[in-house]
Amino acid sequence: MAGSLAGSPTGLPCAAAAHGTRTRQPRWGTLYVVSTPIGNLDDITVRALNTLKSVGLVAAEDTRRTGLLLRHFGIATPTTSLHEHNETRKLPALLRKLSDGVDIALVSDAGTPLVADPGQRLIAGAIEHGIRVVPIPGASAVLAALAVSGYPADEFVFAGFAPSRSKDRKTWLQRLADEPRTVVFFETPHRIKKTLSEMAEILVDRPITLARELTKIHEDVVQATASHAATLQILDRGEFTIVLAPYSKPVLAEEIVDDAVLSAYFYQMTDSAALSRREALVATADKFGLSPNDVYARLERLKAASQS
Amino acid sequence: MAGSLAGSPTGLPCAAAAHGTRTRQPRWGTLYVVSTPIGNLDDITVRALNTLKSVGLVAAEDTRRTGLLLRHFGIATPTTSLHEHNETRKLPALLRKLSDGVDIALVSDAGTPLVADPGQRLIAGAIEHGIRVVPIPGASAVLAALAVSGYPADEFVFAGFAPSRSKDRKTWLQRLADEPRTVVFFETPHRIKKTLSEMAEILVDRPITLARELTKIHEDVVQATASHAATLQILDRGEFTIVLAPYSKPVLAEEIVDDAVLSAYFYQMTDSAALSRREALVATADKFGLSPNDVYARLERLKAASQS
Repeated sequence: MAGSLAGSPTGLPCAAAAHGTRTRQPRWGTLYVVSTPIGNLDDITVRALNTLKSVGLVAAEDTRRTGLLLRHFGIATPTTSLHEHNETRKLPALLRKLSDGVDIALVSDAGTPLVADPGQRLIAGAIEHGIRVVPIPGASAVLAALAVSGYPADEFVFAGFAPSRSKDRKTWLQRLADEPRTVVFFETPHRIKKTLSEMAEILVDRPITLARELTKIHEDVVQATASHAATLQILDRGEFTIVLAPYSKPVLAEEIVDDAVLSAYFYQMTDSAALSRREALVATADKFGLSPNDVYARLERLKAASQS
Repeated sequence: MAGSLAGSPTGLPCAAAAHGTRTRQPRWGTLYVVSTPIGNLDDITVRALNTLKSVGLVAAEDTRRTGLLLRHFGIATPTTSLHEHNETRKLPALLRKLSDGVDIALVSDAGTPLVADPGQRLIAGAIEHGIRVVPIPGASAVLAALAVSGYPADEFVFAGFAPSRSKDRKTWLQRLADEPRTVVFFETPHRIKKTLSEMAEILVDRPITLARELTKIHEDVVQATASHAATLQILDRGEFTIVLAPYSKPVLAEEIVDDAVLSAYFYQMTDSAALSRREALVATADKFGLSPNDVYARLERLKAASQS
């Protein structure tokens, strides 16, 4: 991205190089990246409303949809459209407005702009020109779906929209199938049934969460294995957010290995296989997918229990 | 996760199996997963405030911090602590409260619970028992940092907290170094300098974004290459959110490959190497990191230009 706007037709001076400096230019306008509701209109923050009110212009993915939101909150700020098909063309004019001191709020149809939404070129362009970019956080379908899934979210992958062609989508699902982190992606209503049957084939008994109309009154969350989900009646209306439970290697997990089984294996290793106590700990740990410390703790627990 | 609570000491009936059913149980309480501000207190939604007011109990990562937030908004709902060290122990009592009809709001210190925060076991447990889980979306440091980075966010990876041991962290950075998606992770103030110098070594000239105190008055965003960032004066206070620009293969990209160079290679393949037209298209595409369709389009464009 660096340098991609060098020699751009904006004619703007590059007040601050994007690399190695703090991008601050107080006399210029600020670009606010404003999150808007994903369904329930009450999912908007006080600061988002104040920002939409105070800026000179709202750059919106769809001015009609954003117009409804603004009118609902009695906000009269003018809007201009900014979507994937006109972003490159409109970039110079918007950057010029910012450099002229006009504050601009960037919004998408729903949620946090940039996350699978247009606006990246405007943000990157603003940064490149040393224009201040301020996030106004709020709703996001990605995080809302993660929260209702209950799957681990210490780490996760957001994989964007599923590819539209079935062949590409299958390859893509195949690649996501052994992802050890929770995966979130979007699918459109008219492809959801096809995609679910492909997921049944590729992900089989992986737990998945299908979320639709999140935050709305008819919020709909289904949890099932991939193969079961494909057999369910799914209302193909509204956009779907799909969460895949992380892939876990099919090892015997702590929960299901009995201490006695573990202990029997350990003593078999020290006695029959004539391993040292330390080697047997490591071998047992490997065998059952545990750490040597865990194995040690469980052997001690068993010993204590047998002596009491 | 499925079945992990079967035989748990809660004694709760499993009203709905988590797999294959819609998890709805209207007479029971609801578990609300409520996002709270990450800095600026105005980054809270109308719905989050209403929810915190109306529930019977707030389960908070740190009751003192959440107490400040509640008092700021004049909310008197009782709180109980729920953090990684007591989550397993407190789970049965909280699930029992929910099954007794008490609504509970789960909050973390800042941002969206679950994202590198405790609460996952409570959410998973609630789902397992058929208790309704409702997300109340709001601020998240992950998405706020992504927005100010300007890096592509059609897809991204959230990698959690950087490992605390230097050796582990280096291996982890090495693995993230060739991630083709934008990466976001957290680092603590007391390790940031060490981590930045490791990043300089491993990521070298990769553009990175360092964000601190996002949404606060002293919001601080630095963009630099990894090696430059390590030489900057960094205030080691407050938690850092770090964004890595995606790794891109050092191939000759479309922008910099001249049509004529591409064409010369293509005709060398068909003439000297005696490949078929199709094979030469694929070979040229591979060579320059383009798709065969792109190569075809560019050959056609060159032909048209040379004939006009």
